[in-house]
Amino acid sequence: MTEKYTAVLLIMDGLGDRVVKELGNKTPLQAAKCPTFDRLTTDGQTGLLNVIGPGITPGSDAAHLALFGYDPVACYAGRGPLEALGAGLPSKPGDVAFRSNFASVDDEMKITDRRAGRIFTAEEHRILEDALSGIEIDGVKVHFVATVEHRGAIVLEGSGLSGEISETDPHETGVKVWESEALEQRAEKTAKIVNKLTRMAFERLKDLDINKARADRGLPPANILLLRGAGQHKDIPTLQDNYGIKSAVIAGGSLYIGAAKYVGMEHVPVEGQTGTIDTNFDNIAAKSIECIKSNYNYVFIHIKATDNASHDGNAKEKVLAIERTDGMLSKIIDAVGDSIVIAVTGDHSTPLDVGEHQPDPVPIFFWSKFMRPDKVKAFSELDAPDGALHTIRGIDVMPMLLGYAGYIEKIGA
Amino acid sequence: MTEKYTAVLLIMDGLGDRVVKELGNKTPLQAAKCPTFDRLTTDGQTGLLNVIGPGITPGSDAAHLALFGYDPVACYAGRGPLEALGAGLPSKPGDVAFRSNFASVDDEMKITDRRAGRIFTAEEHRILEDALSGIEIDGVKVHFVATVEHRGAIVLEGSGLSGEISETDPHETGVKVWESEALEQRAEKTAKIVNKLTRMAFERLKDLDINKARADRGLPPANILLLRGAGQHKDIPTLQDNYGIKSAVIAGGSLYIGAAKYVGMEHVPVEGQTGTIDTNFDNIAAKSIECIKSNYNYVFIHIKATDNASHDGNAKEKVLAIERTDGMLSKIIDAVGDSIVIAVTGDHSTPLDVGEHQPDPVPIFFWSKFMRPDKVKAFSELDAPDGALHTIRGIDVMPMLLGYAGYIEKIGA
Repeated sequence: MTEKYTAVLLIMDGLGDRVVKELGNKTPLQAAKCPTFDRLTTDGQTGLLNVIGPGITPGSDAAHLALFGYDPVACYAGRGPLEALGAGLPSKPGDVAFRSNFASVDDEMKITDRRAGRIFTAEEHRILEDALSGIEIDGVKVHFVATVEHRGAIVLEGSGLSGEISETDPHETGVKVWESEALEQRAEKTAKIVNKLTRMAFERLKDLDINKARADRGLPPANILLLRGAGQHKDIPTLQDNYGIKSAVIAGGSLYIGAAKYVGMEHVPVEGQTGTIDTNFDNIAAKSIECIKSNYNYVFIHIKATDNASHDGNAKEKVLAIERTDGMLSKIIDAVGDSIVIAVTGDHSTPLDVGEHQPDPVPIFFWSKFMRPDKVKAFSELDAPDGALHTIRGIDVMPMLLGYAGYIEKIGA
Repeated sequence: MTEKYTAVLLIMDGLGDRVVKELGNKTPLQAAKCPTFDRLTTDGQTGLLNVIGPGITPGSDAAHLALFGYDPVACYAGRGPLEALGAGLPSKPGDVAFRSNFASVDDEMKITDRRAGRIFTAEEHRILEDALSGIEIDGVKVHFVATVEHRGAIVLEGSGLSGEISETDPHETGVKVWESEALEQRAEKTAKIVNKLTRMAFERLKDLDINKARADRGLPPANILLLRGAGQHKDIPTLQDNYGIKSAVIAGGSLYIGAAKYVGMEHVPVEGQTGTIDTNFDNIAAKSIECIKSNYNYVFIHIKATDNASHDGNAKEKVLAIERTDGMLSKIIDAVGDSIVIAVTGDHSTPLDVGEHQPDPVPIFFWSKFMRPDKVKAFSELDAPDGALHTIRGIDVMPMLLGYAGYIEKIGA
């Protein structure tokens, strides 16, 4: 009889790379000592992954939608709703969300600092959130949360909204805050609301005591909100709708938590999971094992440290992040290896020598105790082409994982 | 000039497997001695086949539609029409068909035996068919045929029918025969007809002399029909429509004959072809050669024995079924190898250790005397990933076969 397994997706963000001179003309995956990856590729199946499609450079948000089994173009909602969900705001189909910055403007609304000096205390965050609470414009409720430093997220809750509006952040100083413009006719209401919100934020923030105190500390005032990444939360089926599964996300970065919540995963917080090289890998392993042992059918584990190192061009740190992830996985396999089907890969390539997302496919391996082995014995960009998976697409990963795990109904009889 | 060849598709049902401890950690294909498969893979091209798609477990019916070049979801008609066609009943687009059981009920229509004792003589089959002949309900004609033991098939011929109705077989004893219910509004007429048919079958069968005779032999009466696998015959183009080819099916199992007839193949009966390990492989070879030499452009040969062994977990018998199929193919190649393009594969994986269909891809090879060889020299799940075909889909097989055989028009000039 078909047994059920827990499907596990382990993503090392920005994993894919090219040969790096500093690493003796190896890729970071080749340079890293990864006994667990090597053992699981030896017993499992390896291949290359075009997360969106051949030649297409994936953004992290669209990449994750594809890896969760969704059409990354049709289901893409913009960054705003994912960041808002990741920051803990409520967002539902029809709502429009944004990423926001606290910034500094003069009396003419000209920007003097796009990040309002970057430095914010938790107390300042609380006071700024209070100042922006309870706003309702033309029947649309505004939800705001401050996140890290000057950053935050905003959700417009109401009907008749559209995400097709331009942003208000001009991305330079010395110019006025941009007016949001409708990019389609039915977005005019939303653009008007955003422009009213901008003026209302200025009115509510400019005279706050904390801005006087910031001036005393030599910091520019947080007296305006800049909005970008507009997107409308789409009405898409959840993983529960699609596959009847209960799923969990274990991630440090809010975008990944948000993307996972957008498709119906529950966020399982881990103490010390930071999204940096100093994230607590032991705690991530322990919480992953706990989730796999409990009644989750699918567990998504996201490691951000590989991408940070890639963007910084820090080869040693990328190798270290990979090795620590390998060590973390060894704990998971030792504890619950018999009850899982796992895929290990990245969401895109961020070559160290470029420091930005590139279209190179990413290596991927699948492993479970029952899977047919192929002849690949190491996990790397240069070994992966010899594997039994050949080249797959991001959108194939979810049905493959859930198919082997026993959660996809047979087609036909 | 492009010569024309006869395209041959040889399916070993449920062929795909995993490494099996009992076979020295080999798959059944690796364990089997198959000089013909080895020779043809050496000279031909090998790869992996996702019959429906990555991670999707194929049912046999949907799998065969894909292998015949049809979208297995859009063209899927349910099991009923395929079984009915396979059993020799007339069925045409719009008709609704079922698989049926003769069963035993008491006076309250409660089921006492779902298979009416399983044992039926040919004479009983004839009498039961007579008793159920000439039925017309609300302008819809009912066609019935008894097949093997208690099994049979039913076609409702008429207009305004729908296959979206629930079955009447409760799959347990001690409960009443289920009423069929409409699963969509336009199916209400069909559900009513089915429920009238159930009562009419009881009235016509309960007092038959054969049921008194069965009682004397200690057998329960065949006094009711249970219906399941409802499906509506869809209006799809035939292989003749799609490719202008004349095609034949050589199969023992009625489902496979039915699926082939559904797309327009002619059934060519073979004496002693049973769908078990004792099927007459020599006669299948002889009839295949005869068909290839005659004016068929496409010949589909189906061997069921591999799947039976897989579902039974019988490793030795699966190996034997593969070896006998290899021997059969050697006769075909010796006789008519020069005039064919052949693909050899399975319709799905049924690993011996699971005993059910699983999503693992199936190995496939193509061979003709003119085909470019790749480096694979054996036919197995573990060798196939190295082949020139990489990974293909079920729906690719027909155009590839017919393309090489010379039956697909160039696109463009």
